[in-house]
Amino acid sequence: MARFDTVVKDGLVVIPYVGQIKMDIGIREGRIAALEDRIESTDASELVDASGKVVLPGGVDTHFHLGIYRDMAQDTESETTSSVVGGVTSVVSYARTGQHYLNKSGPYKEIFPEILERCAGHARIDYGFHLAPMLSEHIQEIPWLVNEMGVSSFKYFMFYKGFNLASDSRDAQAYTMSEDYDLGHLFEIMEKVAEVNATVPGRISVSLHCEQAELLRVFIERAKADPRVSGLAEYNAARPPLTERLSIEEAGVLADATKVNLNLLHLSSELALKTAMEVARRYPAMDMVRETTLHHLALACEDLEGKGLGGKVNPPIRDRSDNEALWAGLRHGLITTVASDHACCMEESKGDDLWPALPGFGGTALLYPVLISEGMHKRGIPLSRIVEVAAAAPAQAYNLYPRKGTIAVGSDADLAIVDLDLEQVVTTEVCHSAQDHTPFEGIAVKGWPTDTILRGEPVFRDGEVVDGNRGEYLHRSAQLVGA
Amino acid sequence: MARFDTVVKDGLVVIPYVGQIKMDIGIREGRIAALEDRIESTDASELVDASGKVVLPGGVDTHFHLGIYRDMAQDTESETTSSVVGGVTSVVSYARTGQHYLNKSGPYKEIFPEILERCAGHARIDYGFHLAPMLSEHIQEIPWLVNEMGVSSFKYFMFYKGFNLASDSRDAQAYTMSEDYDLGHLFEIMEKVAEVNATVPGRISVSLHCEQAELLRVFIERAKADPRVSGLAEYNAARPPLTERLSIEEAGVLADATKVNLNLLHLSSELALKTAMEVARRYPAMDMVRETTLHHLALACEDLEGKGLGGKVNPPIRDRSDNEALWAGLRHGLITTVASDHACCMEESKGDDLWPALPGFGGTALLYPVLISEGMHKRGIPLSRIVEVAAAAPAQAYNLYPRKGTIAVGSDADLAIVDLDLEQVVTTEVCHSAQDHTPFEGIAVKGWPTDTILRGEPVFRDGEVVDGNRGEYLHRSAQLVGA
Amino acid sequence: MARFDTVVKDGLVVIPYVGQIKMDIGIREGRIAALEDRIESTDASELVDASGKVVLPGGVDTHFHLGIYRDMAQDTESETTSSVVGGVTSVVSYARTGQHYLNKSGPYKEIFPEILERCAGHARIDYGFHLAPMLSEHIQEIPWLVNEMGVSSFKYFMFYKGFNLASDSRDAQAYTMSEDYDLGHLFEIMEKVAEVNATVPGRISVSLHCEQAELLRVFIERAKADPRVSGLAEYNAARPPLTERLSIEEAGVLADATKVNLNLLHLSSELALKTAMEVARRYPAMDMVRETTLHHLALACEDLEGKGLGGKVNPPIRDRSDNEALWAGLRHGLITTVASDHACCMEESKGDDLWPALPGFGGTALLYPVLISEGMHKRGIPLSRIVEVAAAAPAQAYNLYPRKGTIAVGSDADLAIVDLDLEQVVTTEVCHSAQDHTPFEGIAVKGWPTDTILRGEPVFRDGEVVDGNRGEYLHRSAQLVGA
Amino acid sequence: MARFDTVVKDGLVVIPYVGQIKMDIGIREGRIAALEDRIESTDASELVDASGKVVLPGGVDTHFHLGIYRDMAQDTESETTSSVVGGVTSVVSYARTGQHYLNKSGPYKEIFPEILERCAGHARIDYGFHLAPMLSEHIQEIPWLVNEMGVSSFKYFMFYKGFNLASDSRDAQAYTMSEDYDLGHLFEIMEKVAEVNATVPGRISVSLHCEQAELLRVFIERAKADPRVSGLAEYNAARPPLTERLSIEEAGVLADATKVNLNLLHLSSELALKTAMEVARRYPAMDMVRETTLHHLALACEDLEGKGLGGKVNPPIRDRSDNEALWAGLRHGLITTVASDHACCMEESKGDDLWPALPGFGGTALLYPVLISEGMHKRGIPLSRIVEVAAAAPAQAYNLYPRKGTIAVGSDADLAIVDLDLEQVVTTEVCHSAQDHTPFEGIAVKGWPTDTILRGEPVFRDGEVVDGNRGEYLHRSAQLVGA
Repeated sequence: MARFDTVVKDGLVVIPYVGQIKMDIGIREGRIAALEDRIESTDASELVDASGKVVLPGGVDTHFHLGIYRDMAQDTESETTSSVVGGVTSVVSYARTGQHYLNKSGPYKEIFPEILERCAGHARIDYGFHLAPMLSEHIQEIPWLVNEMGVSSFKYFMFYKGFNLASDSRDAQAYTMSEDYDLGHLFEIMEKVAEVNATVPGRISVSLHCEQAELLRVFIERAKADPRVSGLAEYNAARPPLTERLSIEEAGVLADATKVNLNLLHLSSELALKTAMEVARRYPAMDMVRETTLHHLALACEDLEGKGLGGKVNPPIRDRSDNEALWAGLRHGLITTVASDHACCMEESKGDDLWPALPGFGGTALLYPVLISEGMHKRGIPLSRIVEVAAAAPAQAYNLYPRKGTIAVGSDADLAIVDLDLEQVVTTEVCHSAQDHTPFEGIAVKGWPTDTILRGEPVFRDGEVVDGNRGEYLHRSAQLVGA
Repeated sequence: MARFDTVVKDGLVVIPYVGQIKMDIGIREGRIAALEDRIESTDASELVDASGKVVLPGGVDTHFHLGIYRDMAQDTESETTSSVVGGVTSVVSYARTGQHYLNKSGPYKEIFPEILERCAGHARIDYGFHLAPMLSEHIQEIPWLVNEMGVSSFKYFMFYKGFNLASDSRDAQAYTMSEDYDLGHLFEIMEKVAEVNATVPGRISVSLHCEQAELLRVFIERAKADPRVSGLAEYNAARPPLTERLSIEEAGVLADATKVNLNLLHLSSELALKTAMEVARRYPAMDMVRETTLHHLALACEDLEGKGLGGKVNPPIRDRSDNEALWAGLRHGLITTVASDHACCMEESKGDDLWPALPGFGGTALLYPVLISEGMHKRGIPLSRIVEVAAAAPAQAYNLYPRKGTIAVGSDADLAIVDLDLEQVVTTEVCHSAQDHTPFEGIAVKGWPTDTILRGEPVFRDGEVVDGNRGEYLHRSAQLVGA
Repeated sequence: MARFDTVVKDGLVVIPYVGQIKMDIGIREGRIAALEDRIESTDASELVDASGKVVLPGGVDTHFHLGIYRDMAQDTESETTSSVVGGVTSVVSYARTGQHYLNKSGPYKEIFPEILERCAGHARIDYGFHLAPMLSEHIQEIPWLVNEMGVSSFKYFMFYKGFNLASDSRDAQAYTMSEDYDLGHLFEIMEKVAEVNATVPGRISVSLHCEQAELLRVFIERAKADPRVSGLAEYNAARPPLTERLSIEEAGVLADATKVNLNLLHLSSELALKTAMEVARRYPAMDMVRETTLHHLALACEDLEGKGLGGKVNPPIRDRSDNEALWAGLRHGLITTVASDHACCMEESKGDDLWPALPGFGGTALLYPVLISEGMHKRGIPLSRIVEVAAAAPAQAYNLYPRKGTIAVGSDADLAIVDLDLEQVVTTEVCHSAQDHTPFEGIAVKGWPTDTILRGEPVFRDGEVVDGNRGEYLHRSAQLVGA
Repeated sequence: MARFDTVVKDGLVVIPYVGQIKMDIGIREGRIAALEDRIESTDASELVDASGKVVLPGGVDTHFHLGIYRDMAQDTESETTSSVVGGVTSVVSYARTGQHYLNKSGPYKEIFPEILERCAGHARIDYGFHLAPMLSEHIQEIPWLVNEMGVSSFKYFMFYKGFNLASDSRDAQAYTMSEDYDLGHLFEIMEKVAEVNATVPGRISVSLHCEQAELLRVFIERAKADPRVSGLAEYNAARPPLTERLSIEEAGVLADATKVNLNLLHLSSELALKTAMEVARRYPAMDMVRETTLHHLALACEDLEGKGLGGKVNPPIRDRSDNEALWAGLRHGLITTVASDHACCMEESKGDDLWPALPGFGGTALLYPVLISEGMHKRGIPLSRIVEVAAAAPAQAYNLYPRKGTIAVGSDADLAIVDLDLEQVVTTEVCHSAQDHTPFEGIAVKGWPTDTILRGEPVFRDGEVVDGNRGEYLHRSAQLVGA
């Protein structure tokens, strides 16, 4: 019998915080059993030839919206399929009560098992959930969610105080199905999360969508009234970086007062990142994750002009100068994680009318490709930094490390094998998502996974999606993490 | 004919930013005509003997609520009467639409003339108004208010976003009679004020009541549910300093973004003052006034226990340690102005039930007495600093200086002649207000005005209020300021 | 008998921290006896007609070098003569042991009486001294100097650690006649001054010349070796703002550690001012005076090219952009005092060779003229701000206020009567100094004193110097300050 | 033939930035060839049984003084012998011209080859050098040292400006054999290092001994004169943390001005660490390493009282509260590296007289033992953090990573196999150094290496030093780093 179920041979392996090493990887029972300068082919039941390629830890895409606009089972299947194209082997998706998703409210004791049941058996890759406490009762459920259900991160949406998701309605209560969804509610979430964090190993944290609803109101009114702006530029004008700045400052005060671990999601602008860093320096003991997304790195309003509303998203696509500020932040460690904020949103949900158009779009298929193409090839960012922001750091932030997010003996054998020279123009077909359009359409991207391996078995092979839904729920309690 | 209508003789005159000088003051036609080491009695038609006393510039009490709970004419008369007891010769009162005051809404083009008309002829001392733009339309009226009506300061109440004044109702819209009274509204006020400020001489500014409504919601609920606290201690617990901190940080971001002149009103706690200073240092170009009140300096929750609800006020009376932090701030220049936040509120409006009780109470009669007794006598704060915070600095902040707030040739002859050794226990009678109780009741205070002079004529003489309502409206446009 | 010895009539009087007031000033026995809207001519023994002019408090020029290069008696007479041209009525001069001045060393118990004796009877205006403790023994003399001799400010020269004054020799010990003239010595000065400050009323302080000797060494070597720079541009390159920055940071650490009152002298560059502000914000309790000079405000290297070495001074003349940064700082309160750093240095001491040329030159004749011409006329800085930086604030910093530095009853009747429209081109003749050249030569200046009054009597009248040396030694102990 | 030369079996392997993993390590030709969950014994020519033990990356002790006081060949042999006891497999030693070491001056083109020659063949473990540019000429040699000689870090001693090493003489020039050893010299070093850093891969940096000579002068004089202190307490008093604070602030200004990578060595006190963090926050783009030593973590003045002068070291041993501040800093990432600052200094060089006593002592034998005993066992610091500060981070800082400092395929097989439960009392015998005393004497330490492996072969086996000097010179150019 061969020593290993599978051996990944002859690749240049990129290990977070170490660098690139030429070696072979032996896999047994879904976990990495050996890292070795050379493993004989005869030691392998199955061989994966990585020669001429780099081998990365499978991407850990921790900003995702499974089932937000579509049937959850169906969406889970189609969208985790898209993930494998991008080398992603774990997603941590947001879920919540209120409109969209299950389109109802109620305690998570009832809702969350239903979500888990709907997803079960439909994911191609491993998946976990961040939950958003929308009701006061949900805050009381946090200890149970942490301790029993393996949920270690909790989200608050700063603009749901005043708007629905599309921001075409100010009847936020109808949208959230919650009465007191305000900073007081956030304060109580933070208090509870900090309290639970002190009682368990691992990192229990609060994640924030940072756009301030009250300022949004003013800028939305102004943008609507301004005949000079339309389309995505209008949306950008309607949600300027000042709204991010104010909400980050608000969040900083509350996080300092409660001593909670804080994740600032999808920072979209130079001002947002600058504010986050100021807050970080003001409160040096604060444990702060600073995330940006692929689209805030790679898409600019200027470039999407006249291309419809597919790129509507919260916070909006900004300008090229914001792109560069975020790339610089990524290079120097100010940006700590990158995610896709993937939300499958069909063209019919976008339509031709800016305000009712649903926000969000897919991106998980591009996680490694865009980081490599735009980051490494164009801007010289080393691969070791890319696997840190797209795999190791998100896994650390959300209690998955080192089971996920690195290449170490004992870790899950989640790998992305990437041909750095493979160039493809982004199309919907390439992305393998159910989504029938993409704002990344037409961009030439160099550096794509040819194979993605989940717990030792291929989910994407030679550029083809492999049949089967082997993804399992990630119970993110600290005791399961580590070898 | 004598050279002067009135001469104040033989007093020790305290001039802001200079110090104490033994001299006589010659007054003609209501203004100071001469400062002289010695003016002969024969040069005076009228003599005021200030020997053995100190002569201070008349107090400029810039936080006042004329007519908030009572008929405006009647309240103006009774409460400006109380001012003269405290050596105050100018008040700048807040006014707004919505419940209380005139109890209606509408444009200031209609409302403000009505307010002016109601007050006219009823004030014992000079009076001006800060106005609060409650409606979007009000923001458009700011240029007119500044340029035509002499209003140079505009207020926003940070907790009206979620509560009425007594905070027993969350139907804030019914209270404010305004739909979008939020930080977006504040942003638009600041933008407009900054815009007007750039076009006129003098200081046009935004004043803030800093308590954050959303946090208040949580702490009010908790305090109500907590059987261990009641009365004013419950009220303090329900509105903790963290609510001030958050709203000051929010205000700082918006003031920096709009480059507006900012006045932080009635800072009540050590944390509020610390936060204000941090914001000031973060934005060194910001023009920031930091006000506290007599009651936040001199009253402590511990001391009012069991004494009823008379001391209910927003923000609440805090602890003795907060008192001391504010005194230290006053001494070192962190607190820049002190006011009374006078609001005549009868015992029947307080009642026995904490939540419906109306907030606020009088204090103007104690402006100089408390500052002298608690500040100078007990804590060694020099008189020159006291006249700076109670006269010069408020006059500067609100465009009245040097007509008001100092003792200079050409300035209005507004003077408080104080017997530093006169000791009285505070009672309602001493205060000469219509208010039928006082939370300062029973405190022994040393250092009271014996005479208060408004534009050259006594309004308070030998401890007796002089008949007549000579107060005039203060048109605070810069062109009228200065000699 | 007339009520007043002298009356200054019909001027527009500028009072620090108040503004401009049309009034007359009555003077008796050298002090201001009356400020009055109108004093009858018949009340005056002597009349000074100030109609059409502004009346300023006499300038308080607190950076001066009496007798540095010339006989002290002679220099005192000629250079205080120059002061009266600029409206200056008080100087506080530096003195020290070592080369220049008396050109010897020894305890101040011996040296200082000698200095006082040499000056006595030779000054046209009042004069005091800052002393520099050069020896360890001098530090022990500080209590005596403060308490007995009326010296309240003590200087340390940060570049004497490595260079003589002209900076053509690194044998600093020969120059200072002191062995351990280093930051350790400064620390001990600061400790002692802080200790004494705690025991007396008033402000006892340490003043610093901020250029770091060790960096100077490198940049001087480089400038000397660089054929592209010569003259004053070479000198500027040889002492770049980085040397100011480093020494200000060093001083900040020591001042924070010792809690001493700190005066940063002649800040010459944008970087120096920025650093000083950063230090001030870092240590908010620090009492910090930030001085600049007339020449750092008004002269630029670019403009002096090819005009010889007359402008050699420490720190050097900088660029126009530094001028503007300092003017902006003056406008916004970052610069707190302005002085001349007057040192009469004859052309023969300059010569044609940059390095041996002695540094420094006169400027006291231009104190008000340059501030008015360049500050008020060209940059719109109000006169009230000008009298604050040139009279009130220096008097406060050095324990002379309100006896000097303002116009108040009881203050010394020190006045500068200025014709704002009088325009003169600067020449050596205009300056009335012994100095036979001036780097300000040829600049058209608008706004000159026509009359300067010292303790009630003219020292400069209708543009002519009045005979007689009435200046008295300023014993700057706090008990003599105030009326 | 077996697959591996050596296999380390059944240990719990600690990988920096990952954690603890149960696995076996296969070694071939001195490098790690395989990390595997299980390697068969038959695959190993040589077996190392690590069962019940932890396997750490060999310690990288980057503060060392080979040959400072003794013959360099002899010292290299005896002191790297001591290293293997502590699990250390690489040292980076300081060397310089001037007194001690080779006791002469001259260009490094001559000196450095001589140093290399003297050490060659005498080291038990790998060794590199930081060099100190003492002369201007040395600065010009930096590019050659980086590019040809593999030296990537350059040291400046901030107190050599005023003192010799023992600090019993102020004739620093005699000691350094250099004329202008001052902050100007440091500035020029920084400029040159930053310039070279921009042209090569890897991190070229400046390291600083932070004690300010001028303040030292004052405090040394005071301590000498103070009869209440003697011995090590006197030495601590003579070099208080303020001297560290000032020099760190000076260094920060210069490092910011030159944009150099900065290493702050042997931070000894809470104040030093606090200052370093303030500087780091002030200049967020600065790349700053913050080192402390074993003795500053584990020894306190209070505990060494009456135990002689063996513990004399620069900076001095501080107090227990400083120990705890440094441990807290290590835990939270403020301290980034820990080293021994090993300098073999015989008892006869210490003697009974504080001032002539030579400073320094050995510690390399305790690198892992003290970190494990005091850090992990007593303070709960995880082993993963310990290998970061003692192996990974120093290797990264000095261009040795990932060849040294981690356990990865392709890395040098440098390992410390540690019995966490082995307890020994520290004696000179245990340390295996030539040094005939130790200030750590008598401390019970729990957690010692039983085996240390250098490039695949044991240098310490079952607690016995293995014969042979296999150590090689570490040419720290970036191109040799990585697999």
